[in-house]
Amino acid sequence: MIIALAGGVGGARMAMGLAAVLPPSKLTVIVNTGDDFEHLGFSISPDLDTVMYTLAGVNNPATGWGRVHETWNFMQELAGLGGDDWFRLGDRDLAVHVLRTMALNNGVALSDITMTLARRMGIRHRLLPMSDTPVRTRVVTSRGELAFQDYFVRLRCKPRVQGFRFAGSRRARLPAALQSIIHSGKVSAVIICPSNPYVSIDPIFSVPVIRAWIKHRNFPVVAVSPIVGGAALKGPAAKMMSEMKCEVSPLGVARHYGARVDGWIIDRQDAKLSPHLEREGKSVVVTDTIMSTRAKSANLARCTVSFARLLAADRA
Amino acid sequence: MIIALAGGVGGARMAMGLAAVLPPSKLTVIVNTGDDFEHLGFSISPDLDTVMYTLAGVNNPATGWGRVHETWNFMQELAGLGGDDWFRLGDRDLAVHVLRTMALNNGVALSDITMTLARRMGIRHRLLPMSDTPVRTRVVTSRGELAFQDYFVRLRCKPRVQGFRFAGSRRARLPAALQSIIHSGKVSAVIICPSNPYVSIDPIFSVPVIRAWIKHRNFPVVAVSPIVGGAALKGPAAKMMSEMKCEVSPLGVARHYGARVDGWIIDRQDAKLSPHLEREGKSVVVTDTIMSTRAKSANLARCTVSFARLLAADRA
Repeated sequence: MIIALAGGVGGARMAMGLAAVLPPSKLTVIVNTGDDFEHLGFSISPDLDTVMYTLAGVNNPATGWGRVHETWNFMQELAGLGGDDWFRLGDRDLAVHVLRTMALNNGVALSDITMTLARRMGIRHRLLPMSDTPVRTRVVTSRGELAFQDYFVRLRCKPRVQGFRFAGSRRARLPAALQSIIHSGKVSAVIICPSNPYVSIDPIFSVPVIRAWIKHRNFPVVAVSPIVGGAALKGPAAKMMSEMKCEVSPLGVARHYGARVDGWIIDRQDAKLSPHLEREGKSVVVTDTIMSTRAKSANLARCTVSFARLLAADRA
Repeated sequence: MIIALAGGVGGARMAMGLAAVLPPSKLTVIVNTGDDFEHLGFSISPDLDTVMYTLAGVNNPATGWGRVHETWNFMQELAGLGGDDWFRLGDRDLAVHVLRTMALNNGVALSDITMTLARRMGIRHRLLPMSDTPVRTRVVTSRGELAFQDYFVRLRCKPRVQGFRFAGSRRARLPAALQSIIHSGKVSAVIICPSNPYVSIDPIFSVPVIRAWIKHRNFPVVAVSPIVGGAALKGPAAKMMSEMKCEVSPLGVARHYGARVDGWIIDRQDAKLSPHLEREGKSVVVTDTIMSTRAKSANLARCTVSFARLLAADRA
């Protein structure tokens, strides 16, 4: 069993690749819920949706979020009636928000409604939120502490970042399926997808049980660098790293994760950093990491799984 | 000040006519909320919406409910994900349900969010729900007691009707604006629009304060018959009347309302019933009542207002 930790776009593309090369019984994707929020009366889980839509093949490749062939008539009318339109909800996308919100209000666990929705979208691999209770990423900035979507969407990541806080992580209730996985002892490797370290992966690590599980692991953790050639492919990771005084390179990300990661997969553009990473005790694989097509996602996934199995064999 | 009591389509067309011939300060439309319900997590007020959309000129004339130029992508996705699709909510229409639901959940009165939405849609006349608290029409049928929308939409009015119940009417809280109107003593007439007597107008009369106000009135009540030539123009009124052993004619409707109505407006097709109505002590005007165009709505409104003023002058 391989566990992937994923945020939004980069995580979704990696998850798609992994789902292409691993059977459903051998892969579980744990998704960040730190950027979940309540808006217009809906419980919205942006990263879960991005991963779900991508695995179902109905994601919008142009935006990186939301549905393909989307229409915006709801949003247009809402704006005309004076409603908030800074967070865009498409007409098709709304169906998921309505069903999820109804389920949560009826006491259904987020992981259960996620599995139901994923199954109805034809997804055969398991998709789980990192927590069934709210864990909310708060961004400490030059303009004070902000709710994640305020920072990310409304203010377009403009405020300078000074730190992060994950409200609710200490009380987080793990999905039952994730508890079973952790207690099963059957995990052969954890793969950290090329997602934002601060706001996609750190929220997952902020859950005490997950952090302890990784700390005391008997399996390798392999990470794919979200930084390629000194920049993030998408999103504010590079800007955040520079504001957090972290070197904007795979080395900076590796130092951020520290002992949590055993092996790094970096892009050919960053091949020269390989010796530096090895000097810090990491195993390294250099390959093409830019997942611009489904085939490239699958190639990267194949390479990552092989690397993880190699590291697992080394341990044994 | 003229008060119109309205249900859905017929009420909306009459309200449109009245709004065309009376200034905003002289007309308030009281709308049935007996068919309101909670669905998919939304608080839905079908008659309020039909009247609002009609007054704003964005109603769908083909269906009689919902928005013109509507799209159905939300509904299609929802059905694909296993959601309930027996009550159709269009993409544009959703904006109103989302804003109303948010407002109600935040403790805003139904009448206040109704006035806000109506104003934002450019409506200058006052539109008020009959109650700020839920009053729910229950249909007693051959298949047991049903919630109104279950009977009306899901079962397409098929069960035989045996009676009606208006749950919550005794505890109904009148909108503050409606209380003011009642206590002002400035009402010159009440007009009952050609709406279903059982499920559009009776719910309004089921509110004790409104019933007492009409009973002890010092103004005339004028009604436009919803039955023309032995049939209802739209909806199940005729079927219900026949199942309730009520003659399917303006005379049957007049007997149903009894002393609550002073003057009847009936269609030319039913002119022969005029003497019968007069024999029961009613004043009668015979005219064209089918509001197939805006001009015909305005003509009927003009005729109704004149008739009401005449009856008011007779009283004085």
